[in-house]
Amino acid sequence: MLYTKIPTQRPVTPLLDEIDHPKQLRQLDSNQLLQVADELRQYILYAAGVSGGHFGANLGVVELTVALHYCFNTPRDRLIWDVGHQAYPHKILTGRREQITTIRAKNGLAAFPAREESEFDTFGVGHSSTAISAGLGMSLARRYQKDPCEVVAIVGDGAMTAGMAFEAMNDAVAHQADLMVVLNDNDMSISCSTGGFAKHLAAIWEKGHFVNITETGDAIVEPYPNWSYTSRLHEAATNEADNLFKAIGFEYYGPFDGHDIDQLVHVFESLKKRSGPRLIHIYTKKGKGFSPAEKDPIKYHAIAKIPSIVPQTLSSKKSAPKYSAIFGQWLCDEAERDSRLLAITPAMCEGSGMVEFAQKYPDRFFDVAIAEQHAVTLAAGMACEGLKPVVAIYSTFLQRGYDQLVHDVALQNLDVTFGIDRAGLVGEDGPTHAGAYDYAYMRTIPNLVLMAPKDENECRQMLHTAYQYSGPAAVRYPRGVGEGVDVTQELTALEIGKSEIVLPVDAQYDEHITILAFGSRVAPAIQAAKKLSQQLDVGICVVNMRFIKPLDTQMIHELNLKTTMFVTVEEHAVMAGAGSSVNEYLAQAQILKPILNIGLPDEFLPQADHKQMLHDCGLDAEGISDSIVRAWKKSLVLC
Amino acid sequence: MLYTKIPTQRPVTPLLDEIDHPKQLRQLDSNQLLQVADELRQYILYAAGVSGGHFGANLGVVELTVALHYCFNTPRDRLIWDVGHQAYPHKILTGRREQITTIRAKNGLAAFPAREESEFDTFGVGHSSTAISAGLGMSLARRYQKDPCEVVAIVGDGAMTAGMAFEAMNDAVAHQADLMVVLNDNDMSISCSTGGFAKHLAAIWEKGHFVNITETGDAIVEPYPNWSYTSRLHEAATNEADNLFKAIGFEYYGPFDGHDIDQLVHVFESLKKRSGPRLIHIYTKKGKGFSPAEKDPIKYHAIAKIPSIVPQTLSSKKSAPKYSAIFGQWLCDEAERDSRLLAITPAMCEGSGMVEFAQKYPDRFFDVAIAEQHAVTLAAGMACEGLKPVVAIYSTFLQRGYDQLVHDVALQNLDVTFGIDRAGLVGEDGPTHAGAYDYAYMRTIPNLVLMAPKDENECRQMLHTAYQYSGPAAVRYPRGVGEGVDVTQELTALEIGKSEIVLPVDAQYDEHITILAFGSRVAPAIQAAKKLSQQLDVGICVVNMRFIKPLDTQMIHELNLKTTMFVTVEEHAVMAGAGSSVNEYLAQAQILKPILNIGLPDEFLPQADHKQMLHDCGLDAEGISDSIVRAWKKSLVLC
Repeated sequence: MLYTKIPTQRPVTPLLDEIDHPKQLRQLDSNQLLQVADELRQYILYAAGVSGGHFGANLGVVELTVALHYCFNTPRDRLIWDVGHQAYPHKILTGRREQITTIRAKNGLAAFPAREESEFDTFGVGHSSTAISAGLGMSLARRYQKDPCEVVAIVGDGAMTAGMAFEAMNDAVAHQADLMVVLNDNDMSISCSTGGFAKHLAAIWEKGHFVNITETGDAIVEPYPNWSYTSRLHEAATNEADNLFKAIGFEYYGPFDGHDIDQLVHVFESLKKRSGPRLIHIYTKKGKGFSPAEKDPIKYHAIAKIPSIVPQTLSSKKSAPKYSAIFGQWLCDEAERDSRLLAITPAMCEGSGMVEFAQKYPDRFFDVAIAEQHAVTLAAGMACEGLKPVVAIYSTFLQRGYDQLVHDVALQNLDVTFGIDRAGLVGEDGPTHAGAYDYAYMRTIPNLVLMAPKDENECRQMLHTAYQYSGPAAVRYPRGVGEGVDVTQELTALEIGKSEIVLPVDAQYDEHITILAFGSRVAPAIQAAKKLSQQLDVGICVVNMRFIKPLDTQMIHELNLKTTMFVTVEEHAVMAGAGSSVNEYLAQAQILKPILNIGLPDEFLPQADHKQMLHDCGLDAEGISDSIVRAWKKSLVLC
Repeated sequence: MLYTKIPTQRPVTPLLDEIDHPKQLRQLDSNQLLQVADELRQYILYAAGVSGGHFGANLGVVELTVALHYCFNTPRDRLIWDVGHQAYPHKILTGRREQITTIRAKNGLAAFPAREESEFDTFGVGHSSTAISAGLGMSLARRYQKDPCEVVAIVGDGAMTAGMAFEAMNDAVAHQADLMVVLNDNDMSISCSTGGFAKHLAAIWEKGHFVNITETGDAIVEPYPNWSYTSRLHEAATNEADNLFKAIGFEYYGPFDGHDIDQLVHVFESLKKRSGPRLIHIYTKKGKGFSPAEKDPIKYHAIAKIPSIVPQTLSSKKSAPKYSAIFGQWLCDEAERDSRLLAITPAMCEGSGMVEFAQKYPDRFFDVAIAEQHAVTLAAGMACEGLKPVVAIYSTFLQRGYDQLVHDVALQNLDVTFGIDRAGLVGEDGPTHAGAYDYAYMRTIPNLVLMAPKDENECRQMLHTAYQYSGPAAVRYPRGVGEGVDVTQELTALEIGKSEIVLPVDAQYDEHITILAFGSRVAPAIQAAKKLSQQLDVGICVVNMRFIKPLDTQMIHELNLKTTMFVTVEEHAVMAGAGSSVNEYLAQAQILKPILNIGLPDEFLPQADHKQMLHDCGLDAEGISDSIVRAWKKSLVLC
């Protein structure tokens, strides 16, 4: 069935309602699976309308998920979903049908598979391209334990370009591991990607070893269903290396129509009988079965809640631009001024706000696919030739390019600018996507300049500052919208390493508490200070530190004269964070004053609304204020 | 010529002596290149005897290097040597002939290509698999600048398994970049590696498109030299995708004999005329031309100085075992006690001390090739099945698996043990191999336990502690030998988060300086303390902190009562390091005492002898002592 609307009423799903465990699915007759898939699709449409969240990828794997749980003895057999955007049908079929509408909400189901949530979630994911490595680990472990089971890693074509997937395939062959990889190849790579791998997939698809293509574009196996799959599949496996998977040493089967549930069942049942590393190449459509999403899969990658089902509260800063939009605008403006600017993204063009730039400057835009390591070193190579590359990357994904940042960029002091998005907490995506460690892993690197803006205008000016600086420099900014301030069109570089006082001390006070605030926490620190100054009847000075590295030690030195207590505030782990760098300076200068470091706790924080999370961590104005009061009272007792 | 001995006298090299710039090489007649290569080989043999250092790889690329500089207009054309072990002939031919004997020494030539050393060193390397990304960056930059040049990345077969190389190849095809990759395939992968990629290379080799193999195993092109290369090469390029390189979209040429200099010149001259991404597959022998190295390339990967040329000073701790040997012995012992132990290395079996383990427990030993990302997540997968994997990795290379450590291991709190070798300074290998940032990038990760031992026996016990701990735990230990203490056969787990006082305060003193020392700096801290206590007539207490995370805050709290000044000492950057975590605790507890953080400065340190480097950084007993005196005097003035 092709649906055209997201249902606002829970659909009738009699078969699905009986499945609380996939063993109940496995008791069905195979000719009932089509109905299960249809009910599942309707239910996902409904549930996504209630909860919002990832959408297209889930609709695309409905038949695949049904077939996998029907053919494999889950949870004893291991399914590993790469990235995990596409695990909603899996969650629904494995006892979480009723909770699925809570996905991504506080105390609800996690956005991605998570081991603590279910025994069916064999591996926690969120970042791409880990599933083959993890699956190989499981397979080798079970072989060693002499207790083998089937291990199936389901990986999208986009995730296959990350080097890690290649590393894992290479190693799987070394061990002739009993491992199936389902390559879930959808329109996206063929129409949107341009890398060698995507072209290769398209070429395989064109050759159509096992499939014919109907006039409407559907893929079917001919002749079907009377063929003996096993013998044909075996024949295919022993062919010469005529594609990448065979070249690396996998048995290759496909491509198959990933929406033909009967075919999938036949294929999986047949391939279960074989051993060694096997790759099953299936073709699916993102958004399958929902016509608007089939037509515009990028728009329907994820959707917001449908207000007619769930009333939405309006955000107070709704009108302020997103930081990613600020980045995108700056990129266009700077590119217009300086022809040396090239921009690089590892497959995050939309998320990083680069759509306009990509359209305006196609010859200066480099989407390198999911390949963070390569993205960073590519920039280093460009900088060697005197150009000025800008790498747009999320904080959590820069972790993938960490060695390259140290070894290829900073060590050679190359002129690369990093726009680090989604830094700090990220709300509903949960701990896998939080950018809570970038100050720590970056400020320890020599030669690097690291900034965090207090608002969207400062973000723009900092990006310009980083760009003007002839060496490695990074600006890290939060997910979501800015503070709603005016954004100056003019670009003015800040002085490197200079902070600014954003709330001076009231003249009536001789002494004061000094709050050194970083990035997104400047605004709530000011709020907290205003409230506290009255409440405690003390002077409070708030500094927007701007630079994590180099730290403005001169400002701290000057303010120290009249400071009774220092406070640092940041949306980053306290451990090794920006506040910690202030501690280092105070230690070095032998300044013996109380200092309170406010930041994220030493734990992985579960998903919730971003604001809620900040509140729970004591990082909103109220929390900052409370912490200061406690520390201040303690310091008075000690003095 | 096949040589059997390393010459102790500088060989006679009349042609080589005239080459101070490759343009002089290019003025020679092509029939003189054979003699240049022979002289170069003799000179490298001599020079390596004088300086020690990498050996086999350099002998293997003599003909290749001559051919490249002969055919390409360096430095305008860009040669990028992957890893850079093999750049000695390149350095000799590019104006550094006389300095080559200073390689790896303080103020001498760098161990690897380095941009600040020469304009011919187009990209600084040290870690593997970066050359294609960097070369692609250069090629795309030059295309954008409308000033194209030839860009050639020379990559070993071992480095090709790292996912980053795959990411770069995928992207090169996306841009149809004008880029040559020389795949320098040597015996190692065919005889030693077992991954899918190595098997594939072996299969290509066996097919021998362009080569015949003589009875002695030498590869020659038949018929040769009368063929027109260009036409044959073109024909090859347009073949169907029958190997991995073609599948990903590269033109593929080869395999060729990498020691046949005439052939190489023909091939490069021919392929210069083509555009787009081209891969030239050559076959070379590690240690070529020196019979002992040809026979045992692993032993001759690097050699020590020849004492008959250069007298060596004996190290004082010569008899103490290396930390890598301690790790290897512990691994065998723990494996004997616990059948759940599996061990993983990313291609560092020998360096990590795992040879014995690999022989004893072949089914529990996993060399995953150069694939750090995969290595970490493979371990995570194994841990999911209830096994207890141990990952052996160098500190600098764990930077490549950082995201996997955060996202796949720590976030899921999986039971993986990390043995982190070469932590701190590493001497002659220089800044690319220093492990100066691991405290910073690891201590910020929740769930992780992180230790550093004061000596080799504690290293053994800490590895056991990490292994017993049912969660992610890491022990980081230095390059080189231990302190020469007795190593207890018995394995006793330490209490998590508990430090030990290793030098108590003399009873005559009411108050004392407290030195909190981490890892390798415990021993010099004790030395410094003993000397200082007399010199300043103050009490000094030295604590072996053992745990960077969790920090023993109780010990600090207790000692604080009588402490006049705290000192932290570590072989790690001060920024965000272990001392910084002590600062955080003092801040939190509002302990207002002077604290001195001693560690590495915020810069990339050039190569020198390890001891010399520690001295230069003030991290030996003398330096620690001097720093404390300065800080102590300053604190007295302030008080």
